[in-house]
Amino acid sequence: MTNIRDMAVSTRKAAARLGVLGTEDRNQALEAVAQALESSAADIVAANEADREAAKTDGISTALLARLKMDEAKLRGEIAGVRSVKALPDPVGKVDITRELDEGLVLTRVSCPLGVIAVIFEARPDAAIQIASLALKSGNGVILKGGREALRSCQAIVEAIHRGLRGTAVDPEAVLLLSTREESTELLALDDYVDLVIPRGSNALVRFVQQNTRIPVLGHADGICHLYVDRAADLRMAVDVAVDSKTQYPAACNAIETLLVHEGIAADYLPAAAKALAQKGVSLRADASSRAILDAVKDAVVEEATEDDWRTEYGDLILAVRVVDSLEQAMEHIDSFGSRHTDAIVTEDSSAAKTFLAGVDAAGVYHNCSTRFADGFRYGFGAEVGISTQKMPPRGPVGLEGLVTYRYQLVGSGQVVTDYSGPDGRSFTHRDL
Amino acid sequence: MTNIRDMAVSTRKAAARLGVLGTEDRNQALEAVAQALESSAADIVAANEADREAAKTDGISTALLARLKMDEAKLRGEIAGVRSVKALPDPVGKVDITRELDEGLVLTRVSCPLGVIAVIFEARPDAAIQIASLALKSGNGVILKGGREALRSCQAIVEAIHRGLRGTAVDPEAVLLLSTREESTELLALDDYVDLVIPRGSNALVRFVQQNTRIPVLGHADGICHLYVDRAADLRMAVDVAVDSKTQYPAACNAIETLLVHEGIAADYLPAAAKALAQKGVSLRADASSRAILDAVKDAVVEEATEDDWRTEYGDLILAVRVVDSLEQAMEHIDSFGSRHTDAIVTEDSSAAKTFLAGVDAAGVYHNCSTRFADGFRYGFGAEVGISTQKMPPRGPVGLEGLVTYRYQLVGSGQVVTDYSGPDGRSFTHRDL
Repeated sequence: MTNIRDMAVSTRKAAARLGVLGTEDRNQALEAVAQALESSAADIVAANEADREAAKTDGISTALLARLKMDEAKLRGEIAGVRSVKALPDPVGKVDITRELDEGLVLTRVSCPLGVIAVIFEARPDAAIQIASLALKSGNGVILKGGREALRSCQAIVEAIHRGLRGTAVDPEAVLLLSTREESTELLALDDYVDLVIPRGSNALVRFVQQNTRIPVLGHADGICHLYVDRAADLRMAVDVAVDSKTQYPAACNAIETLLVHEGIAADYLPAAAKALAQKGVSLRADASSRAILDAVKDAVVEEATEDDWRTEYGDLILAVRVVDSLEQAMEHIDSFGSRHTDAIVTEDSSAAKTFLAGVDAAGVYHNCSTRFADGFRYGFGAEVGISTQKMPPRGPVGLEGLVTYRYQLVGSGQVVTDYSGPDGRSFTHRDL
Repeated sequence: MTNIRDMAVSTRKAAARLGVLGTEDRNQALEAVAQALESSAADIVAANEADREAAKTDGISTALLARLKMDEAKLRGEIAGVRSVKALPDPVGKVDITRELDEGLVLTRVSCPLGVIAVIFEARPDAAIQIASLALKSGNGVILKGGREALRSCQAIVEAIHRGLRGTAVDPEAVLLLSTREESTELLALDDYVDLVIPRGSNALVRFVQQNTRIPVLGHADGICHLYVDRAADLRMAVDVAVDSKTQYPAACNAIETLLVHEGIAADYLPAAAKALAQKGVSLRADASSRAILDAVKDAVVEEATEDDWRTEYGDLILAVRVVDSLEQAMEHIDSFGSRHTDAIVTEDSSAAKTFLAGVDAAGVYHNCSTRFADGFRYGFGAEVGISTQKMPPRGPVGLEGLVTYRYQLVGSGQVVTDYSGPDGRSFTHRDL
């Protein structure tokens, strides 16, 4: 029986060969994968039906069952996605520094693949297709570990991918599928062979991965986003932005969980916002000052907020509300309870907006628009590898650039450092070319 | 007694205020620090003498004692360094994406400070000055933890820095000095308050930090660099580059530890290289094929190499030597035993050079020059925050850009995602401005 380490070594070797291929070879491989997925559509859909039957028997939740679903229409969309990834600019081989250090000694910094990426995902078999295409595009090997409930679907998908790759310059071993939970634990220990792990699923999954591996993790456990309605807000805009930020897709990490309202506008704003939110089925968890205003609002569903509410990602039609006495108090609240994901201000006061944008420490800081824009596709990245709430780059919605790193190439004609040392040493020119 | 967490919170608050200051305010603070260090020169030098006296009594090594030394000349150099950092371009506020997502909805990506940086260093008190200036320049708070043997020096330095900052826009609490080993352990647990930790010292220190914190670490534990002398190498150049890469500063992480020689050139190259290396006092650890050639070389000091030698960072005038049968074998050796720091090829064959530069997975890949060039100053970064052998950026020698991250700012006029959703939704323009 092959163990995970041996498999990872094979993936690593295949990835090294993939990493030096040109743009055309990688794009051809993506086209071959798209075609193989097309010709295997019936098998994939059948495998997925079997997965869903089994999942139903196991009593899986409706939400999970919906995510598990891969019918022909869904698959067609995913195959179109493979071709979109193919059409993206090549993230590999981009040069961002070209500098003459001295005559005939030239430094370049060029982007290159990370090596091997591992993705651990729950139900969604579409993740296998998306991540495999992003990995191939960026010259990386990929180890896929899907949830048990999606196993048949993932196997059918990866079989098709392998078949597609067979006629191309890419060794099929560059894409590896793991299936058991034990393999997943072993995978997290392979920090010598895996360069990045991307957990895709619940906060609990992300946190588990973050706490159980030395491999760098791209992901975010929490999305506690805020909307601050400033004293100088346009009331109508502030209502619209709050409703969109909370209700357009409440389960998303970029939906708001807390609404902060300046005391100078609260009496005007809160009743209007509460009515609009109530129409969308949102219930509120309000602090004492907000409740004093909200209790008079017909239809509003209001409960008392505790400090726990400031720390809670509802992921649902629930919104915490707090009245603050100043912009500064709003920013302090965000600093104490936010998850540095995306926070927005609505105001017509450009100085307040400037203070907020400069001072709130989050991957996304927004002025007069919905937090729901925090997304790689909406940002124009063409693809989203993940969203990161860590401080170091890549941060926020991460496109293909999150799957590449860089390398310094220095090309000379025999230069040695001794000649540049001491009081009579040569000087560097440091001239950007 | 104040505990570390409370102190870190104060540093974090001071850092938040520092982070929104403009270029001028931060540069003025650096000038004030330089002047305060000048006027405290006598105190600092005296404190350093006391440290060195105590260290001698404790029987500290000569090498460590040399690093501990901060006389007036050394201090003058460090103060000049503060002013050089001041003169560097501001790393904060650089915009690298400006994109219209739709009319009146503009995304910018702008560089910003990380927040709080911690530096753990051994003997060298100069590290305190260097890192504090880099932190102030980049708008970050900094927690300094120096070695016990440098405590008096560090205290005198940080007192001067605090005094300098008092008349400026920067709160002196932005620079915090810790002194005990217990504090250092507590510091590593503060992943909620510290955004980056930079260990500066022995491999053992770096490894300890890497293995005992959840804070991102900028550093490198090993520097196992290789020089591969290709079949088509210019012999004279290959000798010069080997001598410089090994002997110009053998303790440096970018000095080579292993010399790989193509079998087609070994009989000509090795005797010449061995002679030149022997003149510099280098002893060799050679594999069987190299020994067959080297045994005939007068003056060469040659011992038998074992596989352990391929994994050893001597940091000394010792060099492992292996004959390989091909470029591919050289690259496999580097892949198996290298630390992904800096590896070089000497060859006149441009195709071999291209294969090496594209295929060797290291932060620095060099052609026809010494590995000793791997350094932030030589690269023209003006400063070196550290060297990283991790895969993810920042990688290799890291300048000020390693102390900043970025933030996405999105400024609109009430846009909501609902309007961009569904079959009739608005389209994004994604126009770079």
